[in-house]
Amino acid sequence: MAKKILRVNMEDLTVKEEEVPEEYENLGGRALTSQIIADEVPPKAHPLGPNNKLVFAPGIVTGTGSPNSGRLSAGGKSPLTGGIKESNAGTPFAKTLAKKGIKAIIVEGKPENKDRYYLLKLNEDESDLVHADEWVGKGLYEAYEELHEEFGENIEITGAGIAAEIGASNAGISYTDPEGMSSRYSGRGGLGAVMASKGLKFIVAEEPKEDRIEIKDEETFNEGRKKLAKALAEHDITKKDGALNSYGTAVLVNIINESGGLPQRNFSEGSDDRSAEVSGEKKAEAVQERGGVRPHKCSPSCIIQCSEIWTKEGGEDPVGVLEYESVWALGPNCGIYDLDTIGELNRACNDLGLDTIEMGNTIAVAMEGGLLDFGDGVKALELMDEIYEKTPLGRILANGVEFTGEAFGVNRVPTVKGQSIPAYDPRSIKGIGVTYATTPMGADHTAGYAIAPEILGVGGDADPFEKEKGELSKNLQRATAAIDSAGYCLFIAFATMDIDEGMEGVVDTVNGVLGTDYSIEDVMAFGANVLKTEREFNRKAGFSKEDDRLPEFMKEEKLPPHNEVFDVPDEELDSVWED
Amino acid sequence: MAKKILRVNMEDLTVKEEEVPEEYENLGGRALTSQIIADEVPPKAHPLGPNNKLVFAPGIVTGTGSPNSGRLSAGGKSPLTGGIKESNAGTPFAKTLAKKGIKAIIVEGKPENKDRYYLLKLNEDESDLVHADEWVGKGLYEAYEELHEEFGENIEITGAGIAAEIGASNAGISYTDPEGMSSRYSGRGGLGAVMASKGLKFIVAEEPKEDRIEIKDEETFNEGRKKLAKALAEHDITKKDGALNSYGTAVLVNIINESGGLPQRNFSEGSDDRSAEVSGEKKAEAVQERGGVRPHKCSPSCIIQCSEIWTKEGGEDPVGVLEYESVWALGPNCGIYDLDTIGELNRACNDLGLDTIEMGNTIAVAMEGGLLDFGDGVKALELMDEIYEKTPLGRILANGVEFTGEAFGVNRVPTVKGQSIPAYDPRSIKGIGVTYATTPMGADHTAGYAIAPEILGVGGDADPFEKEKGELSKNLQRATAAIDSAGYCLFIAFATMDIDEGMEGVVDTVNGVLGTDYSIEDVMAFGANVLKTEREFNRKAGFSKEDDRLPEFMKEEKLPPHNEVFDVPDEELDSVWED
Repeated sequence: MAKKILRVNMEDLTVKEEEVPEEYENLGGRALTSQIIADEVPPKAHPLGPNNKLVFAPGIVTGTGSPNSGRLSAGGKSPLTGGIKESNAGTPFAKTLAKKGIKAIIVEGKPENKDRYYLLKLNEDESDLVHADEWVGKGLYEAYEELHEEFGENIEITGAGIAAEIGASNAGISYTDPEGMSSRYSGRGGLGAVMASKGLKFIVAEEPKEDRIEIKDEETFNEGRKKLAKALAEHDITKKDGALNSYGTAVLVNIINESGGLPQRNFSEGSDDRSAEVSGEKKAEAVQERGGVRPHKCSPSCIIQCSEIWTKEGGEDPVGVLEYESVWALGPNCGIYDLDTIGELNRACNDLGLDTIEMGNTIAVAMEGGLLDFGDGVKALELMDEIYEKTPLGRILANGVEFTGEAFGVNRVPTVKGQSIPAYDPRSIKGIGVTYATTPMGADHTAGYAIAPEILGVGGDADPFEKEKGELSKNLQRATAAIDSAGYCLFIAFATMDIDEGMEGVVDTVNGVLGTDYSIEDVMAFGANVLKTEREFNRKAGFSKEDDRLPEFMKEEKLPPHNEVFDVPDEELDSVWED
Repeated sequence: MAKKILRVNMEDLTVKEEEVPEEYENLGGRALTSQIIADEVPPKAHPLGPNNKLVFAPGIVTGTGSPNSGRLSAGGKSPLTGGIKESNAGTPFAKTLAKKGIKAIIVEGKPENKDRYYLLKLNEDESDLVHADEWVGKGLYEAYEELHEEFGENIEITGAGIAAEIGASNAGISYTDPEGMSSRYSGRGGLGAVMASKGLKFIVAEEPKEDRIEIKDEETFNEGRKKLAKALAEHDITKKDGALNSYGTAVLVNIINESGGLPQRNFSEGSDDRSAEVSGEKKAEAVQERGGVRPHKCSPSCIIQCSEIWTKEGGEDPVGVLEYESVWALGPNCGIYDLDTIGELNRACNDLGLDTIEMGNTIAVAMEGGLLDFGDGVKALELMDEIYEKTPLGRILANGVEFTGEAFGVNRVPTVKGQSIPAYDPRSIKGIGVTYATTPMGADHTAGYAIAPEILGVGGDADPFEKEKGELSKNLQRATAAIDSAGYCLFIAFATMDIDEGMEGVVDTVNGVLGTDYSIEDVMAFGANVLKTEREFNRKAGFSKEDDRLPEFMKEEKLPPHNEVFDVPDEELDSVWED
């Protein structure tokens, strides 16, 4: 049964099924969202205007049951960066779309009445838009509970939160986790605001009775799937009781703090002994004590299982996972070394529909601007209330780091292309800085995770202080674009970079689904092509290579303890875009 | 006696006199500020960080007594646009600097203690920095009165206001008018915030006992001066009892409203009968009745005298001039058709240190965002109080149109390169749109005033709906850059475009002062060179030709009454930068 594209027009409130154009047939995930945006959105469109579009696309292998294949890409023109954006998440919603035979959902236009919100219900045979005004102003945890009551326990949900309702540049898109909570996110770049600007509040879908997954070459696929599963089961980082399975992504807290690259108090130092208080190890203990869940999978096919369910003491107020990035952003980067406060801040982000990285950085910049003191978790939580109440201060904060820096006169603003820098200081770990600077996404660690060879000894060994990192970042960015298109979780790369069979498994499963005969080189070329498409969109939107730079202060202020600045030459950065 | 450059280092609080480098000798005004910024400021510097600089430079002929030569340029990297900025004003401060032999003041660095403010006192023989903390948080009208009490009646003042203290992107630099009030402005682009970011609150100067103006060829100069004076006295727009002298710049209200190009209610219509209530003619009558002053000169050598002193009824609360742009921005563009309200809003802008164009546009966008209703002057005035009180809402508004649009989810944001569009809708008058799009300054009518031939029949006749306006805008931009460098008021161009002898007069006076032998072609080439320097700075700061575009909505929404969109092709825009 042929896959289809669902075109949701929010101006005339119609949902149409379209055939998949031939040129999109072998695309999925990021490759497909970026291509559709490049094809259909004028690069100078206002991100929250009627000409921007929001695209959802499961990956090529998503829904097949191949390990860790439960990723969903969201794409659009970003209100945060002004450039193209793809942000993917692991969520059961991904496989539900794939099983329904939906190659992509394209949301376009906007309703005349801008205060009206709709819910897109994807039914077994057709889809319709119904009013959703009753959930406006409601937190997403509560809203998702009510949606389950209304539409059944078996649904998956995509939602835009309170932050999105005010058009905030830091509004992410929330997805249900396996428990049905709002804890999985296409967080970065403000795509939640794009969704809400179109009057779309939720998408609700139930797994279809008829599974429309198509695998063109079952044999190749199955071989690949086994190879990949084996590699994941063997590698120290991805195996059962390995680093990720035992402690989650926050296992990195101690490692990166030790390396001197864990930014403290708005990127003013690179380590602090108190970071150990919020480490993955401490967190895993606490989850155990409180009766939370750990390990846990964010989506059905996951075998790494790095996720968890964090709760308050006594098991109250389940949050979902506290990822490394979230713990760092809302914790050490704000001078907060207390998991309970971090958990509450994270829950507020999930509830409001905000990216935790951007929000943590925003609080840190507000701290530097004198709005509150570093370490003041009580006031930080009060700031979240400002967003719930949509006050002017809440509007400032929900628009992210650069906006807040401008409002409060802070010049040390850690952003690239308007998006804030994640949890690895590029002065201490230079290769990741090359990725931050050059990816079309704005500062993004997942776009080319140089930390693997620079710190973890995965995929080779690279000296973190070495400046020649153009080639490394380029290759990682290309491989990542391919993985994001396949629909695999990026964490498979820990295994596939070190175990050749694992990499073969990835290529085999893709070939199996598509009936193609791609080589690894073809896959890398495919990734390079995705990047080219994205960069070309950005060029037309007004970006130049001068935007591929880290913020001024990182080139001038030395970061303790290594007292390094970011000194990778501009030419090295530009080399990422040379063939 | 050789001229000098004053270098004010706000980090170590020193003021040094430097010789004028040979390559700067024949530069002045905009040519000099832009060249110094290009030479000394890293294009990627944070506008409010220590690496940006603020430069003041009187024009080449400023202080000579040539007609309308009292202009002062301020330059720096703009916090509003992120590009290079030159903003000039007519003020007696200009000739005071020139007579002191000051070719330029370069303010650089910033003090360690960011809450400390200083006053630069330019004495007869040396200069020093003294504390100015007592004026923090005070309105500029009151502050200037106190400064006159402290430093004498004969001083001129440059100041940064309350808006600048919060680093607001719409903070202008205020200068004294001949009455000593804060009513003359380098308003656009946020250079007041740059000044305050350096801890510099005021510059105070007294006219020196020794006049250091140097005219190398008195005969040529005097001939030129007479030619120019004659042309100004003859032309209908510039002569005594002519359009500008009788009604001020606001004479344009009726004219542009009639043309269908006077933007109403955030650029949603191009004319409204009520505009007549705030016309220059009505205003001149009211000034008369109230005992204000009209005509009036903004600086000593002016013979056009388009200025005035607007007051409340009964002569209370003198404001200074209500310019056409201010009346429009704070009036019809906000749906306000009442000169008293406009006068109060304008006084608040002058008092807070805000550009009226950006502020009026900001209020209009806030109105569109639902913060207040169009036409609600009472609430508009209350919004100004938020800035006095530095509340979060005040911080949003003081950061200008784009910032406010983002905070309140408004997509119809009339800006180019982050700076808001002035009082001529480019859909009805297309040549001015070419200037808005392509000038390195962000949307700026003064950069290449195509209105002259398009509406006023000055400098030829051009159909406002005609799209081929690249050549026109290019020539106007080049001529303007030269005039801004010479130190002449742009309004001399009304006469010099139509009367050849006037143009000769301009060139003669410049040659007289410099001892050069420039032809008119040389002067145009000089202007072209200034533009090239500015554009190259912007390129290195990250701008590309894709930033030389008008906002999306102007290409899509038809503007009544002519129901035109802005349809000048991109290629025509780009042609401005072809030789």
